[in-house]
Amino acid sequence: MSEPMRMSDPAGLVARAAALDAADELAPLRDLFALNEGSVYLDGNSLGALPRHVPERIRDVMTRQWGEMGIRSWTEGGWWTAPERIGDRIAPLVGAGPGQIVVGDSTSVNVFKAVVAAVRLADQDRTAGGDRTAGGDRTEVLVDATTFPTDGYIARSAARMTGRRIVPLAPAELPAALGPRTAAVLVNHVDFRTGRLHDLPGITAAAHEAGALAVWDLCHSAGALPVGLDAHGVDLAVGCTYKYLNGGPGSPAFLYVAERHQARFDSPLPGWNAHADPFAMADAFEAADGAVRGRVGTPDILSMLALDAALDVWTDVRMADVRAKSLALTDFFLECVEVYAPPGRVSSLTPAAHAERGSQIALRCARAPAVMDELIVRGVVGDLRRPDVLRFGFTPLYVGFADAERAARVLGEVLAGVPGQVPAGVPGQVPPGRR
Amino acid sequence: MSEPMRMSDPAGLVARAAALDAADELAPLRDLFALNEGSVYLDGNSLGALPRHVPERIRDVMTRQWGEMGIRSWTEGGWWTAPERIGDRIAPLVGAGPGQIVVGDSTSVNVFKAVVAAVRLADQDRTAGGDRTAGGDRTEVLVDATTFPTDGYIARSAARMTGRRIVPLAPAELPAALGPRTAAVLVNHVDFRTGRLHDLPGITAAAHEAGALAVWDLCHSAGALPVGLDAHGVDLAVGCTYKYLNGGPGSPAFLYVAERHQARFDSPLPGWNAHADPFAMADAFEAADGAVRGRVGTPDILSMLALDAALDVWTDVRMADVRAKSLALTDFFLECVEVYAPPGRVSSLTPAAHAERGSQIALRCARAPAVMDELIVRGVVGDLRRPDVLRFGFTPLYVGFADAERAARVLGEVLAGVPGQVPAGVPGQVPPGRR
Repeated sequence: MSEPMRMSDPAGLVARAAALDAADELAPLRDLFALNEGSVYLDGNSLGALPRHVPERIRDVMTRQWGEMGIRSWTEGGWWTAPERIGDRIAPLVGAGPGQIVVGDSTSVNVFKAVVAAVRLADQDRTAGGDRTAGGDRTEVLVDATTFPTDGYIARSAARMTGRRIVPLAPAELPAALGPRTAAVLVNHVDFRTGRLHDLPGITAAAHEAGALAVWDLCHSAGALPVGLDAHGVDLAVGCTYKYLNGGPGSPAFLYVAERHQARFDSPLPGWNAHADPFAMADAFEAADGAVRGRVGTPDILSMLALDAALDVWTDVRMADVRAKSLALTDFFLECVEVYAPPGRVSSLTPAAHAERGSQIALRCARAPAVMDELIVRGVVGDLRRPDVLRFGFTPLYVGFADAERAARVLGEVLAGVPGQVPAGVPGQVPPGRR
Repeated sequence: MSEPMRMSDPAGLVARAAALDAADELAPLRDLFALNEGSVYLDGNSLGALPRHVPERIRDVMTRQWGEMGIRSWTEGGWWTAPERIGDRIAPLVGAGPGQIVVGDSTSVNVFKAVVAAVRLADQDRTAGGDRTAGGDRTEVLVDATTFPTDGYIARSAARMTGRRIVPLAPAELPAALGPRTAAVLVNHVDFRTGRLHDLPGITAAAHEAGALAVWDLCHSAGALPVGLDAHGVDLAVGCTYKYLNGGPGSPAFLYVAERHQARFDSPLPGWNAHADPFAMADAFEAADGAVRGRVGTPDILSMLALDAALDVWTDVRMADVRAKSLALTDFFLECVEVYAPPGRVSSLTPAAHAERGSQIALRCARAPAVMDELIVRGVVGDLRRPDVLRFGFTPLYVGFADAERAARVLGEVLAGVPGQVPAGVPGQVPPGRR
């Protein structure tokens, strides 16, 4: 045997990538997506790739449903019930039974609904005597201090408007901080910057033990890993559909309201779509039953039905398989980075332990903006989180092991041409490839 | 001359319609829209017709901007700034200078932003000593009692969350009710049910005289008639883009914040898109300058760029011409109804006076649901407002005088086959065709 790869592939990474791709049962799904074959797309955690069949579906929505059927599509075309119907399609991907998710509005708007509703549910618990810490006022909303900023901004507004105060804390500090003053806690399932996966079951249980409600932001976990909303007793959750769910730029977000809370879910945005009988055009608001009361105004049908079409790629996909491939991809990428990157030039912010890792790798790097610009020029599309983080998202439906190898190899080449050492002084950083 | 129309057109309506269409300078615009030539579309006040070129534009957004350029489109494709750029395209249609309108979210969500912000502006005025009625607490939000319901529901929530109370009043009663307790007033420019046009200049001036802010809902006037937001000193406004602006089903709404209020506009939904430097991902919220602070989360690009494309039809269209044709169309339709409808069978809820009429005609009618069903079967597409209102929207860009004549004629035929008299007992109804 001549082993022709030896000279150019000293660690055997190219050959291993090929073997891993050949054994990957999810690999055929890649053909469902429109990808630039000349580049490696590692930004699906920001904007998921286009499923090839979506443009034709939207053409039909525009020309036939809108252009020919017109307003009849609100009823006959299923437009009116799209938010709950599509919510029920997302539900199995995040471990929720039917009737608990509605799609619509942005993540930010849904954070507002969820935090205000959680505080009001906590108030109702107290008033109803169901509070195990009777006498205490639930004046605080604990918020993941490492959150994607919009959650913090919106939670602060929700707290201001419900007479509460915000307490920002690192997720690891939350369980100890929960107490009789806590109304609700808002946490990101996966940290957008570092890719750290937080302990959804543990924090939710701790919140309940303290008599508080747990609100989860699933933007970086929905479609990337098993969430288990029902199994872990999550109270309320929000999530994005344009990352791992590939719904298209700015596709509508979703809101989960656990069935046990729906009858008392008191929305701060009780638009006519949340009314029990919207077309009665009644003066008095009477909330609809179920998760539908999380709706607000008229749904944005083009964006919503693009998402609907995009969800077709999940038929027959098991989230456990997605998770297994995601971990294998990120492990392999870290291993490749360790081989290819000049020593001391990058440092992974993403936990090495599988139980603490989402589906992205974040590398701290000197001159990160210049490095990311050059990576993109060379066909490796990740993104930058200022000031010094290179972020690479691994979306198991359309990213393979050869992509991971190539990305790491190009990163090594770019780093060899850009001087600098890894920035110092961030606690908790983990050397690449160690776990 | 043989006058062949005489026998079938005793009042000469068909001939007059043809002459009016021939003289109509806006008539060529009809070709820009996809219309079913077999029917008359009088529901553009609910869902505007499809401009023919929009599907091709959205195909490009999906396949090239999303599929090929991916995240680069957020910057290079202009996605990120679309809300304010498209807002500036709507601005001249509602009499606003640039930099005061952003597009995004639903009308309901924008009503929430506007009413909360108006109350907070009123508070700031009082605190700053600028209140001409110093000493009084501005505890009330006056709301158009005939409003489209969602405005009332949302205003009630906004009032609840800012410690105010709602006072529902007919628009005509508002000027007398304004006083030192009024923080803000929320009014619909055109009544969705009756088509009545309310006195925007007068009510706005009366609000200011009382030291209160005026918030206008332009859903049924934007694109239908001149609004004059700047000229009349409106403080805040919201509007819909899927009616007379033809943006497509559920296309995003818009928010107007008068320039003089922007520095103190304090949004209840301060999402990351409203931040002065969103990509700094800063913990602290610092509001952007200008109308941009009315933005919330990531814009729904497909729906938003469909609207962007749809606005192309307004190039070179003067709103004064749209208004003149709208009034001529509704006048002519009422005249035709008077000729064709059996006596006493329908009664117009829409004011006869031009100064009080929007761009629709609402007819009260016994057995209205059955009548509307039959109209639609016969190719006249209006809509029903329960229990007894037939609603016909006249969109001057693509509805002509022959359409109006045909709709009235078919209505007459349907009424001849459906027994009943006009329902009794609603004050203010105006006989058709009288003005």
